[in-house]
Parts: sequence; structure tokens; C-alpha cells
Amino acid sequence: MKNLLLGLVFLLSINSFAQSDSIFIRNIYDEALERGEAYENLRSLCKDVGARITGSAEAEMAVKWGEKLLKSYHFDKVYLQEIQVPHWERGTKEAAWIEDEQGNIYKLKVMALGMSVGTNGLLTGEVIQFDDMEALQEADPSTIKDKIVFLNDAFNQKYIRTFQAYGACYPQRGAGAAEAGKLGAKAVVIRSLASSNDDHPHTGTLRYDSVGVRIPAAAMSTNDANVLANWIKKGKVTLRLEMDCKTLPDVTSYNVIAEITGKDKKIITWGGHLDSWDVGEGAHDDGAGIAHSIEALRLLKKMNYKPQHTLRCVLFMNEENGNMGGKTYAKWCKENKENHIVAIESDRGGFLPTGFDVRGTEEQVKFVQQFKNLLYDFHLFKFGAGYGGVDIGPLMDEYPDMMQLGMTINSQRYFDYHHSEADVFESVNKRELELGAAAMATMIYLLDKNIK
Amino acid sequence: MKNLLLGLVFLLSINSFAQSDSIFIRNIYDEALERGEAYENLRSLCKDVGARITGSAEAEMAVKWGEKLLKSYHFDKVYLQEIQVPHWERGTKEAAWIEDEQGNIYKLKVMALGMSVGTNGLLTGEVIQFDDMEALQEADPSTIKDKIVFLNDAFNQKYIRTFQAYGACYPQRGAGAAEAGKLGAKAVVIRSLASSNDDHPHTGTLRYDSVGVRIPAAAMSTNDANVLANWIKKGKVTLRLEMDCKTLPDVTSYNVIAEITGKDKKIITWGGHLDSWDVGEGAHDDGAGIAHSIEALRLLKKMNYKPQHTLRCVLFMNEENGNMGGKTYAKWCKENKENHIVAIESDRGGFLPTGFDVRGTEEQVKFVQQFKNLLYDFHLFKFGAGYGGVDIGPLMDEYPDMMQLGMTINSQRYFDYHHSEADVFESVNKRELELGAAAMATMIYLLDKNIK
Repeated sequence: MKNLLLGLVFLLSINSFAQSDSIFIRNIYDEALERGEAYENLRSLCKDVGARITGSAEAEMAVKWGEKLLKSYHFDKVYLQEIQVPHWERGTKEAAWIEDEQGNIYKLKVMALGMSVGTNGLLTGEVIQFDDMEALQEADPSTIKDKIVFLNDAFNQKYIRTFQAYGACYPQRGAGAAEAGKLGAKAVVIRSLASSNDDHPHTGTLRYDSVGVRIPAAAMSTNDANVLANWIKKGKVTLRLEMDCKTLPDVTSYNVIAEITGKDKKIITWGGHLDSWDVGEGAHDDGAGIAHSIEALRLLKKMNYKPQHTLRCVLFMNEENGNMGGKTYAKWCKENKENHIVAIESDRGGFLPTGFDVRGTEEQVKFVQQFKNLLYDFHLFKFGAGYGGVDIGPLMDEYPDMMQLGMTINSQRYFDYHHSEADVFESVNKRELELGAAAMATMIYLLDKNIK
Repeated sequence: MKNLLLGLVFLLSINSFAQSDSIFIRNIYDEALERGEAYENLRSLCKDVGARITGSAEAEMAVKWGEKLLKSYHFDKVYLQEIQVPHWERGTKEAAWIEDEQGNIYKLKVMALGMSVGTNGLLTGEVIQFDDMEALQEADPSTIKDKIVFLNDAFNQKYIRTFQAYGACYPQRGAGAAEAGKLGAKAVVIRSLASSNDDHPHTGTLRYDSVGVRIPAAAMSTNDANVLANWIKKGKVTLRLEMDCKTLPDVTSYNVIAEITGKDKKIITWGGHLDSWDVGEGAHDDGAGIAHSIEALRLLKKMNYKPQHTLRCVLFMNEENGNMGGKTYAKWCKENKENHIVAIESDRGGFLPTGFDVRGTEEQVKFVQQFKNLLYDFHLFKFGAGYGGVDIGPLMDEYPDMMQLGMTINSQRYFDYHHSEADVFESVNKRELELGAAAMATMIYLLDKNIK
């Protein structure tokens, strides 16, 4: 890895930016805000393609859509990278009811968690509630046997960044079914991972253990989770659940890649993910990241920028339930002996961009922070240590000395839409999306110019 | 004014904040985000009272609403301040059509500008277009005589802050009718002051000159302005306009005021405006500012904070078309020989807060900038010279040494809703609103503690 360490020569000292940098960045923003194509591209992805879960016909249409669009911009290279991906389908049945001891019935708004097994007909059981995963893990298995586990961990509203609240609740969605299955439960229902009290369930993937029983799992809306919790306070509650979701054999799919060739052999990768969940339109997650990523490359080409390093935009497939796009890409880069110095991801929605999280050494964080004053007028202020992204994550395993950046975006509204029917094009603001694309192009420019 | 200058003793030097400050601020945010009342108060103002233009029954209900709510919090003082306000009514007729030389007809979506006179029946004239106010002012009056002037200045999308684009277009709404009237026009129609291409007109006040003919003026949606501009490119266009809006005699109304009494005689005022336009629900403009302002005082009381200076929250009446609330308040303060050191306003919507603009001396700006590090974790980063607000503006005339702050808020979406039917409660995000209230309470706390 010595060669890569040497690759990251830090050229900057504060106030060393040329006037031409300011002008170049201003031109990027003017183009994005006045003649930007991000918003129309996002509209087309949401409306002409639609929700595009990995393995679906829509996902394959999204690959075609991405390839055609990138080719229309006449970048130096546009190509597909073949990958094998999981194929899970929601099916046609998805319903749940609760019933109390007096025979009162209430229909819950539920959605199967991604990768869940079906119920094989109508599944019935008594509900036992846990307020978080720890409580479940500490429970006496005999109290859980043959019950339906209800995990009701709610977002901690105190966190300023809603991603922190999401992270804290994530285990009940990701590992709830595996844990409850080990303890003998029949099924799991969870409170949706959402910031608000709303009426639509928010799906997302689960992971079964390699050992253990695979039990069905579904998310209900946060309002329904409150209803269920209230019913449980009053007495015994029976839940009936029917879902015919299923996993089919893996299929072939693609990452879609475009490049502007650089003067040397080093590579700057960025991207978002082309797949989405199968509800709504995947507008914020991650249509916005796709629109940002494509527009960033278009903006730099439009500026007639001749990069030092190769600039590579990747539309990753299968971030949501397997990350086979990110994993395959990293492996392929390594096998081809490529030299990756930086990767950037946009996968936090199409809202107002606020800065960039930096995954790397303290020195790398400081390096990026030197851009702060230059970017203040564009309302970018957040430059600190943090997370890059799921798609680019595996690249870090292959290139531990590289630097990864995750574009930070106002997160207050994100989990109102995330993985739900509400995540549609109309919830994205044109200017906020365009500012995200300009921010990404700007950061790519600054990194390309200032890392030798 | 010497006494006031002495009043502003700057106690801070960077890093002088106590750990207790951080804890106090964190507690403010926890209360606002976990048990906040701003969102429910805004819901009630929007739904139980509704749109509340000055002089209307709704505006009087809003006064009652504010007084009752503030009294329910048991602040030290709650009282009304009587003011005389204008009373303009939209009436029941509001329609416009364009017709080309081939007899094609198209109905425009229009709204009278606030304070406009009516058309006195159906008014008909040939349309003459100007791209901005300068073009109108430079025109030969003979080309304008008896025509209907169409002012089509669009937002400059390059501005990062949309308020700059609004400011640049403002004259066509504020002064278009007065200017065109002087030049002999029959009426004025303008492109709505909005960021997006949308289908709803955005109203707002105009000002006639004390001399000159008063001609009717209306705003059309930005999409319709594009249609009209395209028709005009092809040939002569006739416009028919009917509006029966009118101005009635002034009426009595009120500012609504609540206080926590301080240890000394100095006063910190903050507020938003209780009136709104008569369409939509005035949710962002300025229901959000009212919710922020009330919640800030509630939060400080809840923290059991004993202020050094008197903390006074003012719900101003009539910001939109006369500012009689702000003007009367300033005069009254001066007549009562009050000592005002700081005023803060929230009138930029209920979106994500980003910091505070400071209207004052360079020293005062630097003073506020010292809070920057303390507030970074709460995503407040913008602390620079700027504007305070319309309501608190007149106070500056009476107390030129005081400092004024305007809370800055993500402005990207604001002019999609501003002064239109789209400005409803549902467009406000709970957490963004709560963060605004917490930011305001925090700034009041820091100013109260650090200005002797």
C-alpha cells in the first residue's frame, strides 16, 4: 500500500486557493442552477422507470436507462459491469390484523421486510412486545416460543442528525428476525424506522443467520405501532399475518459506469445506487444520488475540465439488499490492479447538501477541511470525520489508505420518506437537488486538483 | 444613546463558555425535540384560525388565539397592544383571460396584489411586456398609454440564497403599479415572485404613490407568465381582468405580548408576525415564526431560566401590508423610555435553521460569531452581517445602537409556498420547526447571559 500512501500528497495550505478556483466553482453552480439536468433526469428515473428493486424488470430498465443517458453525454467511456444479484419479490399478499380478548379487530398497515420468507398461508399467534433488541436478547426463551415478537424501538428524537436515530433502531430491522427465530418465535413485526408518526410502513432489508429458523418479518407504520402497543397494555393481543414474498434464484445485473480519462493512472470514483425498494419511486433513496452523480460528471465535462486523475461515476446496483454492486466493483478494481485514491458517495437523499463526512485518517480529514472557507458561500459547512457510504465501503477494504467521503445532506425529512410509498419525485426540491450535484462536482474538482 | 452603547458590554472571548452553557443548550434542544409544543401550536394556528389577513375576522381570532395560548403558559405578563391597521379585502371576483389575434382564449391563474384597487367591472386592454422595472421606467410613455403592463422579471436562479432573487424582483410587485400608473397604463399584471415554475399565483402587497393614478394590479402563476410571454412573441395579446378587491376604513387590532421579567430594566424583544395573506394558511409565513417565538419563551420558562434582562416575545400584527404592528411597537417603546438592547425576528419560514444574520456594527457581528463553535453541533453555522426583519426594523430607528438578529433558515423551498395557497401546515416538517424554536431560545439565552 506504500504506493497509495505516496499517492496522497497533501498540497494545500490554508488560503492557497487561486482566484481561478473560486471562478471555476461559481461556474459549476451557475450551470447546475440555471441549466441543470439533474431534476429532469430524476423525474425520468422515477416516472419512466419507477421503483426498481434488484432483480426486477424495473431494475433492468434502470440499467438501460443509465447506460443510454450516460452515452448521450459522450463521456470518454461508458460501460456495464456484470454482477450476480439476489432476487426477492414481495408477492401479492401482504396483510395483518390484530384482535383483542373482546374480539375487536384492527387492520395494520404492514409491509414485508426485504428478503423475508412468506407466511405460507395465514399465520396466527399471540403478540409479545419488546422495546428494543436488548430486551429481546435478555428475554426468557420460554416466553417467546410460538409467539409473534413485536419490536417497538422508536427513533430517539434528541439526535440532531436523524441518521443517528436510524442507526440505533437499525438492529430491530436487520437482526430482529434472526434473533427472534433463534428464540422460537413464529414471526416478527417491527415498528417502522421513521422519524415521524405516520401511516405508511417503511420497509428495508433483514439478514437471516446462516443457522437458525427463517421466520417472516414485517414492518408496520409508526402510528399502527402505537395502536398495537396501546392494545397490548390492555390485555392479550392476537396477530394474524399473511405474506407471500419469496426469494428466487440469483440473476445477472450490472453496475453502470462512465469515465473521463485522466492524465495519470489514479482513479477517483463516485456514485449512488441505481436500485431502490419496490414501493414509491426511490426518489430520495437513491434516485437523488444517481442524479447527483451523473450531473457531477456532466458539469465537469461541460466546464471542459481536463482532470489529472481518471474521474469515474458508478451507478451501483443492489445497495439495498446485498450490496453486490459495491462488493463486485471493489474486487474488480483490485484484480485489475487499479490505483484508487478517493471515493465519494451520495446516498442520503435529495435535500439541502451541508458538507462532506470524511472516512480516513485525521490528516485526511484536515486536508478536506481546508476547503471549508472556499465553500462557505455555497452553504457547505460540515466537514468532519464520518462515514462514506455502503456502495464504496468495500473499496476501502481493498485500498485501506484511500479516503472516502459521504455527502452530508439535511436529514430532518429523510426518514419521513425512506423505503416507503412516500419516496416519490414530488418530494424532491429542484434547487436542493441541483445544489447537491454542484457540491459533488465541486468536491471532485478540488480533490482532483489538490491530490497529486 | 450613550447609555445604550454602554449597555452593550461585550463579555466574551472565544472558548470562555462554561460547560453549564453546553448542558443548558442541550436541555433546550431535548425539550424542543422530545416534548416540543411548536408543531401543535402551528397546527392550531393554521387549522383552527386559518389564513389571517390584517383587518379580517381571522386576524382578530388569531389575536384571541395568541393571547389565550400565552396566558396558558403563565408567563410573568401577557397583554395586548392596541394598533390601527389597514383593512383590505380581496372580494369575490378575481379572473383574467388572454386572447390572441386569432381569437384563442386562455384563462390565467391570477390573484390581486394586496392593497390593489378593483377593476370596476371587466377591464380590457392590449398587453405590453417588460422584462424588469428598469425597462418599464425607460420606456416611451406613449407606448404604454391605455395598455396593460406585464412585468415578467424572473428569479435569478444563480443566487444561492433565494431571498436575494426575491429582493431583486421585489420592485415589480411593490412599485410596478405605481410606476405603470404614472405612465398611463390601465392595469399591471406581474409574474409571481416564486422560485419554481408552478401553477399557483403568489400575492403580496403593493404600494401606490401618494400622487398618481391607482391602477389595479395582479400576479399570475409563473407557468402562466411563461404562456403569456410566448403568446406575446407571436403577436398582439389582449387581456381581460376583473377584480373587486377594495380597501375599507382602518380598524383596531393588536400586537400580542408576553414577558418574563428580568433582573434589570433592559429588554430583549423577539417575535414573528401573526397576520398572514388571505390564501393558504400562512404556515411558513409566518405561522412558523409565531410558533418559534412562543416556543422559545416556553422553553426558557421550562428550563426555569431567570433572565438578567426582560425577555419579551411579541406577536406582531400587520407585517404584510403596512407594518403598523412593528411601527407602533417601536414608538410605544420609545415613549415609555424603555431600554432595548437586542431584537430578534423569525420570518423566513419553518424550514431548517442555519444561523443568524446580524444587523449592527462590525463589533456586534463579531460578538455573535463567538457563539459559532458552541452551536456547530446543532447545525447552526451562518453568523454574518445581514438583515433582522420587517417587524423589528422600526425599533432600530429608535435605538440605533441596538443589535438586531434575523434567524436564517434554509431558503430553497420558501418561495415555492410564499404568499400562496400552497403555504399550508402540511408543508412544515415537525423537526425542522422544532430546531428553529430551539435555535431561537438558545440565541436569546446566550445574548441575555453575555450582554451586561
